[in-house]
Amino acid sequence: MADAKLPLSPGATLGILGGGQLGRMLALAAARLGFDVVILDPEEHSPAGRVAARQIVAPYDDRWALKRLAEACDVVTYEFENVPEAAVAELTALGVGVAPGAKALAAAQDRVAEKSFLAEIGVPTVAFAAVEDDASLAAAVAKIGAPSLLKTRREGYDGKGQAWLQRPADAAAAFDRIGRQPAILEAPADFVRELSVIAARGRDGEIVCYPLSENHHEGGVLRRTSAPAQVSAAIRDHAESIAAKILTALDYVGVIGVELFELAGGKLVVNEFAPRVHNTGHWTQDGCEVDQFEQHVRAVAGWPLGPTAARAHVEMTNLLGPEVETWAKLAAEPESRLHLYGKGEARPGRKMGHVNRLRPLKD
Amino acid sequence: MADAKLPLSPGATLGILGGGQLGRMLALAAARLGFDVVILDPEEHSPAGRVAARQIVAPYDDRWALKRLAEACDVVTYEFENVPEAAVAELTALGVGVAPGAKALAAAQDRVAEKSFLAEIGVPTVAFAAVEDDASLAAAVAKIGAPSLLKTRREGYDGKGQAWLQRPADAAAAFDRIGRQPAILEAPADFVRELSVIAARGRDGEIVCYPLSENHHEGGVLRRTSAPAQVSAAIRDHAESIAAKILTALDYVGVIGVELFELAGGKLVVNEFAPRVHNTGHWTQDGCEVDQFEQHVRAVAGWPLGPTAARAHVEMTNLLGPEVETWAKLAAEPESRLHLYGKGEARPGRKMGHVNRLRPLKD
Repeated sequence: MADAKLPLSPGATLGILGGGQLGRMLALAAARLGFDVVILDPEEHSPAGRVAARQIVAPYDDRWALKRLAEACDVVTYEFENVPEAAVAELTALGVGVAPGAKALAAAQDRVAEKSFLAEIGVPTVAFAAVEDDASLAAAVAKIGAPSLLKTRREGYDGKGQAWLQRPADAAAAFDRIGRQPAILEAPADFVRELSVIAARGRDGEIVCYPLSENHHEGGVLRRTSAPAQVSAAIRDHAESIAAKILTALDYVGVIGVELFELAGGKLVVNEFAPRVHNTGHWTQDGCEVDQFEQHVRAVAGWPLGPTAARAHVEMTNLLGPEVETWAKLAAEPESRLHLYGKGEARPGRKMGHVNRLRPLKD
Repeated sequence: MADAKLPLSPGATLGILGGGQLGRMLALAAARLGFDVVILDPEEHSPAGRVAARQIVAPYDDRWALKRLAEACDVVTYEFENVPEAAVAELTALGVGVAPGAKALAAAQDRVAEKSFLAEIGVPTVAFAAVEDDASLAAAVAKIGAPSLLKTRREGYDGKGQAWLQRPADAAAAFDRIGRQPAILEAPADFVRELSVIAARGRDGEIVCYPLSENHHEGGVLRRTSAPAQVSAAIRDHAESIAAKILTALDYVGVIGVELFELAGGKLVVNEFAPRVHNTGHWTQDGCEVDQFEQHVRAVAGWPLGPTAARAHVEMTNLLGPEVETWAKLAAEPESRLHLYGKGEARPGRKMGHVNRLRPLKD
C-alpha cells in the first residue's frame, strides 16, 4: 500500500506509541533529521515525551487519543511490542500508516505465534509446544521433556512470566506460578553463547544488517553486549539470512532485533525477535556509521537506509537501578559514552541508562 | 563562586537562552546525558523548544520569564552572544548560575571591547580603531588606512552591519551605510586561509581543544568547514595557546569558537570569538570522540570534559535556504550524515541544516 506522504520530508511529524527510553532515543534521532515527534504514553512526563514536540497522555487504546495522534502525525511507529493490536488497527483506519506494522506486532506478541511463524518460514528455533490447560500441559511435557521452560504466551519480558521445569513432575507447580495463563513450553537451548542481529528493512524492501553482537543476560535481563562479535563468516551469513527471511515474510519496515542462540558446533536457533529497536543494538550509537535509531526513523520515513559498518568495538553495559549513580565515574572514563534516560526513580533492576565503552576496531 | 548544585546529577534541568539550531543541538546532547532542558525564546515552537521538556515563550529581558526560568533550572547557558547582559545579571541575582558567564558575553557583544581584551592579554588581532562620530572616523581612517572594513560594534553577524572602505574617501558613505552606529574600523587581514579552534574549559579550569578546522565563507556566511585541518605543529600549538589564554582570562566555562586568520608566513591573528558552540565545530558531531555540544553540556554541568580526538575527516557544508531541499540526495550518500534543524520557512541564506561528509582519517 503506497503512502502518498512518503518519503517524509523534514518537518513532517513522526508519532511514537510508547514513551520509554527506546522512544526517547528514537525521538532524538528523528529530531536530528528535522522531524517533529509526538509521543503517546499513559505516563505523564515520560522519558520520550520530555524530548518530543508533544506528548499525548492517555492509554494506548484511548480512541480519542488515537484520533489526535493520527491527526498530528504523518506516520506512526512503536517502541515496544505490547502495544494493543487494536490501537494499530484504529490508526490505520484513521488513515495514518503504522510501521513496522500489524503483522509483525501480532507475531511478536504471542510466543506460540512467533515460533510457529518462524517454523513456517524455515527458521530454526528450540522445540516448543503450546499450553492452555492441564491436558495440553501434559502433552507438552510429554513432547518437550524436562528440563524445560514454561513462559506465558503474552506480555512477559526481561525474564518475567517464566518458570523452569527441572523435572516433568514440576509442571503443575510451574503452571500455577505463571498464573495458569496460556503458555508455551520450550526446550532449553544448549547454547555456547547468545548472539543477536539487528537488521532493518526499508519501504523499498532493501535490507541491511549490523555486525552481530554477543550478549550476556543476568536474571533474564540484558547486562552486557559486546560488538562486533567475533564470528565465522558462516555464522554471520546464517544470522543475516535468518533476519532477511523474517523481515521479508513480515513485509517489515523498520529495525528488528533478532536474538539467537549459538549451539555447540556452530548452529544457530532463534530465541525471539522484537519488532523494534533493541537493547542489544545500543552499541551502534557510538560504534556504527548510522545507528539503529536513525536507521529505524529512516526506514519508517521511507528514506534510503544508511550504512551499518562498525567504526569501533563497543562494550555496552546496561545501568540498572542504582548503578546509574556511578555516572560521575563513568563520565570521567575517556573511552565511555553515557546514555541516560531521564527516569526519576532508580528502582532495582530498572533500565536507567547504558554506557558504551569504545576501543579501536583493530586490536 | 562555588555552586552547591555542581556537578549536576542526571535528572537536573539545564536552561538555554535561545531556541535556534545551536540550542536544539545542545538540548539533544543534554537529553543524551539524562538532563531535562528548558528553553527561553521569544519565538513559539522554536527549533530547540520542540526537543525540550519545556519552552518559555517570552523576550529575553522579560523579568517574569527569567524568574520562571531560574525556578525551573539548576544552571543556565546561552546559545548566542546577543543575549542581553541584563538577563544574565537578573538570573544570577535570582540565584541560578549562568555559564559561560557575563564577562565572556560582555567581551563578545562589542567588537571594540573584544579586540581590546585580546590586545590586553597579548593575543594578536588585525589593527583596529573605534568609531563613534565623524571625528573618530577621520582619526580611525588616518590610523588604519584603506582598504579597511567598518563594522558596527554590536549585533552584526554573518556579514551584516559591515561596509568596506576601498579608499579613505569612502569613509563617510560607509559610516552612513551602517546607520552611523558606534563602529570599529579594521585593517583587512591578508590571510591565506581561515582556521578556527573550538575549545572548552571545565569548572575546574581544565582546557581541551579540538583539532583545527579550515573554514570557507561566502558573502560573510560560513559555507564549508574541513577538519582536521592540515596545519603545522607550530600553528596548532599557537592556536591552542590563543584559545587557552582567552578561556583563562575570561574565567570561562563551556565551549568557545575562536576564528583565526592564517597570514602568509604562518602567523595567526584572531578574527573574533563566539562564547558558545560554533558552526565551525559542527563537524565534531560525526568526527570526534565527544562532540562540541556534549562537551559544552559537560562543562556547564560541572562534569569532567570528554576526549576531543578526531575519529574521521569531515567536510561540513551548511544547507542554506532552499538547499535543504536536497535532503533526499544527501540521505542516499553513504558518507553523509544529515543534521536538520526543523525550521519551517527556507528563506534564502537561512541556516536550515548541515551535512557532515566523512572519510577515513588516513588517506
